[in-house]
Amino acid sequence: MCVPACQKKIAQALSRRHFLRSAGIGSLGVMAASCAPAASTEPAQQAPQTLSYSRVVDLTHVLGEQFPAFSGQQQVTIEQVSDLNKDGYNMNRWTIVEHTGTHLDAPFHFSDQQTADNIPVADLVGQVAVIDIRAKAADNPDAQLTPEDIKAWEATHGELPSGVIVAMNSGWDAYVNGPKFRNADDDGGLHFPGFHVEATSMLMEERSVKGILVDTLSLDHGPSPDFAVHFSWLPSNRWGVECVANLGDLPPIGATVIVGGPKIQGATGGPSRVIALV
Amino acid sequence: MCVPACQKKIAQALSRRHFLRSAGIGSLGVMAASCAPAASTEPAQQAPQTLSYSRVVDLTHVLGEQFPAFSGQQQVTIEQVSDLNKDGYNMNRWTIVEHTGTHLDAPFHFSDQQTADNIPVADLVGQVAVIDIRAKAADNPDAQLTPEDIKAWEATHGELPSGVIVAMNSGWDAYVNGPKFRNADDDGGLHFPGFHVEATSMLMEERSVKGILVDTLSLDHGPSPDFAVHFSWLPSNRWGVECVANLGDLPPIGATVIVGGPKIQGATGGPSRVIALV
Repeated sequence: MCVPACQKKIAQALSRRHFLRSAGIGSLGVMAASCAPAASTEPAQQAPQTLSYSRVVDLTHVLGEQFPAFSGQQQVTIEQVSDLNKDGYNMNRWTIVEHTGTHLDAPFHFSDQQTADNIPVADLVGQVAVIDIRAKAADNPDAQLTPEDIKAWEATHGELPSGVIVAMNSGWDAYVNGPKFRNADDDGGLHFPGFHVEATSMLMEERSVKGILVDTLSLDHGPSPDFAVHFSWLPSNRWGVECVANLGDLPPIGATVIVGGPKIQGATGGPSRVIALV
Repeated sequence: MCVPACQKKIAQALSRRHFLRSAGIGSLGVMAASCAPAASTEPAQQAPQTLSYSRVVDLTHVLGEQFPAFSGQQQVTIEQVSDLNKDGYNMNRWTIVEHTGTHLDAPFHFSDQQTADNIPVADLVGQVAVIDIRAKAADNPDAQLTPEDIKAWEATHGELPSGVIVAMNSGWDAYVNGPKFRNADDDGGLHFPGFHVEATSMLMEERSVKGILVDTLSLDHGPSPDFAVHFSWLPSNRWGVECVANLGDLPPIGATVIVGGPKIQGATGGPSRVIALV
C-alpha cells in the first residue's frame, strides 16, 4: 500500500481523524503521533545478542513487472540498457513506484516522521515473533490479527520480548501469483487479512515492538475503510513491511529478521530484501 | 560499475579475451567461467552458526540523485508522486540504472550466470574478513589489493575461513561526497583502489569465498584497462558489492554481513542494503 486508487479512502480517513481531533476525542492515529518513538531512541550499542542459526530464509518475493499491486496497476518497469553480447555487460534500468513487491512502509509514508534512509539501522534487525492466523484467514479473507491472537500466542510462548518484530502469517503469500492475492470483489473492494488497529495499539502501548510484517498487500486488512493501522502505527515512528514471503518457514519465536530496506534519499519505503536467520 | 562510458574498455577486454581463447592460452576469465560455482552449490541447511553481536553497522551509503557514478552521469531520479498534505500519504517513483549507490554486481552483470534474484540467499550472508589497505591507498590512489595483502592478513588472523566474504577497506568511502571518489584525471581516467585479479584468482582457486566487497566504484581499480576482476570473478558465479561504507567500523574478522541485494526479476545487480552484525 499505497496508490492513487486509495486516495478517496484516505481522504475519508483524514476527515474522520480531523473530526475526532476537533471533537477532542482523540484517535489512535493522533495519540500515536504524539507518542515518544521508542524504536528510534534505542542506543546503537545494544546488550550483546547471541544468535545461533543453521538456515537463511528469504522472506522476499521476486519483484517483476506483473507483481500484484494494491491499485491493480503496474508499478514496476524493467528495461534492458546494455546487453552482454552486444555491449560486453548486462544492465537494466528500473522504474519503480515505491510501494510494491516485498516492501517497507517507512513512518514518512503516512506522517512527517522518519524516511526509509533515516530509520536507525538497529531498528531494522530483531527477533521475530510469528503469529499464525492461517486458520481463520482460510475461513474469512477479511480476517484481522487481534489482541486476542497476541494473547493466545503469549499464552504459549511467553510475553513478546522487548524490541521484537511481530509478523502476521495469514498464509497469503501462497496466492502471490494469482488473483486471490488482491482478491477483488465485483466493486473493486479488496479482501485479504491485516492487523486490527486494536492489536497494533496494544503493541504500541503495552509492548516494545520495532516493526511489523504482513504477508498481504497492506498492514490494514483489505476492506479497511480508514487505514487505521497505517494512520497510527507509522506516525508513531515505527515501520511495517508488506508482501512478506515464507513466514511459514519460521518458528513462532527465535528467528532473527534483517529488513534490508532501501537507503534511498527521502524514500517513503520501497522494495526491500528481507532475510531471516533461523 | 558499469555504464556506457566504459563500453570501449570492455570491448577491448573482450577482444583480448577472445585473442587469449583463440590462442589457446586461456585467461583468468575463461578459466573462471568453467569453474564449478562453489558458492551456489552450498546446501541451504548449513552447520549451525553461532553469532554474538552488540552492534548493527550500516555498510550502505545514502543513494540520492547526486550519488557519484562510474560514468559521471546521473543514474537515479526520484520523483514525488503523492504528498501527505495533498493526497493523504507520501510516495515517490524512482528511476534507477542498476549499478549505482552501494550496489550488488550479480554474476549475470558480466556473464550468463546468476541474476540477482537467483543468487541463493545463503550466499548473501557470511562472516566478513576486512583487509585494510588504507595506508597504501593513501600513498597511491591506484592501489590494488594483492595476494600479498591476503597473506599478510592471514599471517595475523589465520587462513580465511570457508564461506567467508572478503572486503577491501581502502578508506575510499570517506570521499563519497566529493570529486576524489571518482578521482578523474584530465583525460577522464579514474583513480581509486580495487582488487588485483591475482588476488581474486587466489580467492577463487585456493580459498572458499562467497563474495567480495569494495568501498570504491569498481571491483577493479580505477585505471583498469581490461576489467580483469569483473571478467573472472563474476563469471565464476560469485558476486561483488561496490561502494560499501563504514568498513572501518568492522573488526578484521568476526562480523557477519547480510547483503540485502535486490530480488528484482532478471536484475544484473542493483542498490542493496548491506548490514553487518558486530
